[in-house]
Amino acid sequence: MSEWLEAVQWNGEGLAPVVTQDAASGRVLTLAWMNRTALAETVRRGEAVYWSRARQRLWHKGEESGHVQRIVELRLDCDGDAILLRVEPAGGIACHTGRESCFFQKLDHGAWVTADPVIKDPALIYGRTP
Amino acid sequence: MSEWLEAVQWNGEGLAPVVTQDAASGRVLTLAWMNRTALAETVRRGEAVYWSRARQRLWHKGEESGHVQRIVELRLDCDGDAILLRVEPAGGIACHTGRESCFFQKLDHGAWVTADPVIKDPALIYGRTP
Repeated sequence: MSEWLEAVQWNGEGLAPVVTQDAASGRVLTLAWMNRTALAETVRRGEAVYWSRARQRLWHKGEESGHVQRIVELRLDCDGDAILLRVEPAGGIACHTGRESCFFQKLDHGAWVTADPVIKDPALIYGRTP
Repeated sequence: MSEWLEAVQWNGEGLAPVVTQDAASGRVLTLAWMNRTALAETVRRGEAVYWSRARQRLWHKGEESGHVQRIVELRLDCDGDAILLRVEPAGGIACHTGRESCFFQKLDHGAWVTADPVIKDPALIYGRTP
């Protein structure tokens, strides 16, 4: 493994949290996870590759939806245990619900309310409802 | 506990990752953690209160440095297991190194390089080096 990969402080499961941000708008799109291989693949491809904890496998973002995330910049935080990706999100959609960002629920007077519109019906994105 | 607190999918340790973003500039400042009490305190105070995993206690951001983070908006992601804070960061500094953001290391041709300046000497912020 390369030295820069070992500089990351991977947690007990070999993972690190990854914040993904639209490089143009600054919108925070997702919080996902990477392991060493996912980070190496992200850099090799120039597109975001995460570790899916639900599916326990590498997940090349956009592999089904086409909504790949081209890497503009890759950053690491002060204690080396969190990663920031600044990306160009294809189709302007990051969420499996068809929204721009996964952070579409907003706290409003003690309740979570849906604050963002669906841009594209997930049935049209995936050919099925997720 | 309130219903909105229980809507968060807390992990096995009772924590959720929190992305904190400057509401004005869009800059991603930190990746930190909250438990139920930290989130409730954040909302009650209107300022970011995290759970310090290193110190195993509630951490009112800015309690030592003065760099409190006033909450502008609080969001939850699609699967309810990550939180986004949009804040006004006092002093324009979020990192204990005296930088605007904790994400100051940038991957550049296979090496992490320091990409952002120190705005204020940590010795002046804390009265000692951190």
